[in-house]
Amino acid sequence: MSTQIQQARDGIITPEIEAVATAEGIDANTILQRVAEGKIVIPCNRNRRHRVVGIGKGLTTKINASIGTSSDIDDVELEVRKAKIAEEAGADTLMELSAAGDFQKTRKAVIDAIDLPVGTVPLYQAFAQAMEKYGAAEKMPAEMIFDIIEEQCADGVSFMAIHCGINLVTLERLRKQGYRYGGIVSKGGALMNAWMVKNNRENPLYEHFDRVVEIMKKYDAVLSLGNGYRAGAIHDSSDRVQMQELIINCELAEIGQEMGCQMMVEGPGHIPIDEIEANVIIQKRMSNEAPFYVLGPLPTDVTPGYDHITAAVGASLSSAYGADFICYVTPAEHLSLPMPDDVREGVMAAKVAAHIGDMVKLNKRDRDMAMGKARRDLDWKRQFDLAITGDRPRQVRAERQPECEESCTMCGNFCASHVVNEYFKDDLLQGKKAK
Amino acid sequence: MSTQIQQARDGIITPEIEAVATAEGIDANTILQRVAEGKIVIPCNRNRRHRVVGIGKGLTTKINASIGTSSDIDDVELEVRKAKIAEEAGADTLMELSAAGDFQKTRKAVIDAIDLPVGTVPLYQAFAQAMEKYGAAEKMPAEMIFDIIEEQCADGVSFMAIHCGINLVTLERLRKQGYRYGGIVSKGGALMNAWMVKNNRENPLYEHFDRVVEIMKKYDAVLSLGNGYRAGAIHDSSDRVQMQELIINCELAEIGQEMGCQMMVEGPGHIPIDEIEANVIIQKRMSNEAPFYVLGPLPTDVTPGYDHITAAVGASLSSAYGADFICYVTPAEHLSLPMPDDVREGVMAAKVAAHIGDMVKLNKRDRDMAMGKARRDLDWKRQFDLAITGDRPRQVRAERQPECEESCTMCGNFCASHVVNEYFKDDLLQGKKAK
Repeated sequence: MSTQIQQARDGIITPEIEAVATAEGIDANTILQRVAEGKIVIPCNRNRRHRVVGIGKGLTTKINASIGTSSDIDDVELEVRKAKIAEEAGADTLMELSAAGDFQKTRKAVIDAIDLPVGTVPLYQAFAQAMEKYGAAEKMPAEMIFDIIEEQCADGVSFMAIHCGINLVTLERLRKQGYRYGGIVSKGGALMNAWMVKNNRENPLYEHFDRVVEIMKKYDAVLSLGNGYRAGAIHDSSDRVQMQELIINCELAEIGQEMGCQMMVEGPGHIPIDEIEANVIIQKRMSNEAPFYVLGPLPTDVTPGYDHITAAVGASLSSAYGADFICYVTPAEHLSLPMPDDVREGVMAAKVAAHIGDMVKLNKRDRDMAMGKARRDLDWKRQFDLAITGDRPRQVRAERQPECEESCTMCGNFCASHVVNEYFKDDLLQGKKAK
Repeated sequence: MSTQIQQARDGIITPEIEAVATAEGIDANTILQRVAEGKIVIPCNRNRRHRVVGIGKGLTTKINASIGTSSDIDDVELEVRKAKIAEEAGADTLMELSAAGDFQKTRKAVIDAIDLPVGTVPLYQAFAQAMEKYGAAEKMPAEMIFDIIEEQCADGVSFMAIHCGINLVTLERLRKQGYRYGGIVSKGGALMNAWMVKNNRENPLYEHFDRVVEIMKKYDAVLSLGNGYRAGAIHDSSDRVQMQELIINCELAEIGQEMGCQMMVEGPGHIPIDEIEANVIIQKRMSNEAPFYVLGPLPTDVTPGYDHITAAVGASLSSAYGADFICYVTPAEHLSLPMPDDVREGVMAAKVAAHIGDMVKLNKRDRDMAMGKARRDLDWKRQFDLAITGDRPRQVRAERQPECEESCTMCGNFCASHVVNEYFKDDLLQGKKAK
């Protein structure tokens, strides 16, 4: 069976393309052309039906929430709860990033619990099981990775972050550069580098990239080229190592697309706000506009406990400049495994950012227009309906009820909108003349 | 007695200039010159000693927290508690914006409780007391405003937002424009407009601007030219009305400086991220770089309950582009009077933004450098010391203790930094060669 990109090239409007067109209010032929060109991907899996989500050029910015166990906190029920909260809060996709426990059990439980496309990082399971079975991650047999990618696809995973761009060329850049203030913070990236050094071998995911692509194609899943060298500290941002991996990933994206696989490229990481635009431009240019999946970015290192806010700043800008897909960051980032409240706050912060970005990237401002008017007209119900979530606003207002129902406790009888509606109704409530 | 700006012009390095120089690590003569040119202000009050805070060119971005009663929630103890929380959380200044109750009692209680410079918006007290005394805000006698400005100065207020830029010219722009999707959201602005219409008179604060300036000079307080026409909705941003008031405010800033008064100009409000840079450039150009005090800005209207995050996005950018002073926005914005937890979260979000901005505006990145290394080296104590606050990080880590003390529960035994320290210590931990 053909993949989405192969069918698009054959001019077939798949049900998935149709669904994306409807959801985004864009003509299906436009979506078809962009899928054919590799500019839009639609995560799928032949073994699982789930909500259809398009990611890429001209579409609203999508947000991913990541959950998963660690060796310290390995509780399947907790992860299922977090997955459901992420879906309720409005995440578009979920990455199940367990690094310990019964991998397949957790994965299947999470997949069964939600309707979102689910993604994974198969190297986590591969290295963790190698530690368990052979005593060290570096002892992982190369074959094990491919088996695990196949196993995860068969379970219904629709996109995978795979570290194919780490190779002997990138490793040489890392060594020649001679510094990394923040080291390497990608778990899969750090361990794959260690594996290559210890075994004195090329990364099997690069050497046998065609095998990875063929497995993904079999299930029509999206191959997301992982960011093993993303900067984990502001002072490592946009360095030669990160750029070298980006070059290789963009090269692989093209090869994968030619082979008929849906491809994404991943981006950083920690970058100051004045380098975000450059990162997006370079990725888009080198990959012929393959969808760009970024982790925020985080524009400062010094805000543990508030990194969801920091990431919202970075993600607003990356989205505005053209990033297509942003991974949430929770208040627990850099501190601990996220708990359910962290997941909710992380999703909300990412939603704020995606919308701020889309206002610029897609000029999507109708909802803001309606909200401005609802506020001026003191129409509270409509304000709650237009908000990215009405839950918290309704709760705050219920807890702090004003004496006058039209106003709020901030201004009480001192309400600017009241005054405007009394004195300037005829002057100001007409709407823009040219519109 | 001369004001800071007058003394600076006479070449006198005041104790306040000295304190700013020390706090910012900048030569006192540089500070002196910028104070003389009106590019830096130092809020003061001859009747009160408080922490010295410099605002303006080349200095770190400062953040203000606002508190104050409303007719719905008028509780002096609550406001004092919020003021203390704002100070503890790291606000640089506090605005006491009560709009109801015993104005002087609340103000004095707040001023006594903290060491921060305190600001006010005297029109709130003027209009609220006019409502009480004469039955309508529009019946306020013009003289009452000047008396209240004097009273508030005498109580120890060090900066005031005063709506001098609303005048018959700006009112004409408002009417000729014929729309305002979000109306007028400045309380003082809306009521002053109504007052002018009802009394068919020029704004006394514009007409007798020299009187306002003379009162401020008497106490060496900073006159901050208020933003009565700031957009309260994205679709009103950077419109002719807002720009007209900005022109008048920049003109008044120059006149005030010439008269020997320390002056600031205020900015929006609601603006999408692609208009923030323009707003800062225009203000800086038209005012000869007078300090710019912005309310975020908020780059979307649709995020009630999460507007502290939205404001952090806008404030990061306004600070990066050159804004000097940002007013916090709390999660209660657009919903209710903020409670103590809202105040804390608002201050933290503003601190995140100010730092992200200063990384670009002032290239202030040493702390980020140290944090990157502390993370790589798994030095948790140092991470907490370097964080914008160590309180929440310490709490999260205490609640979710990892088995291995060096790592965290996010990755458990799967820690990238461990791997890097084992395999790449010699290659990567040298520091940048050129540095």
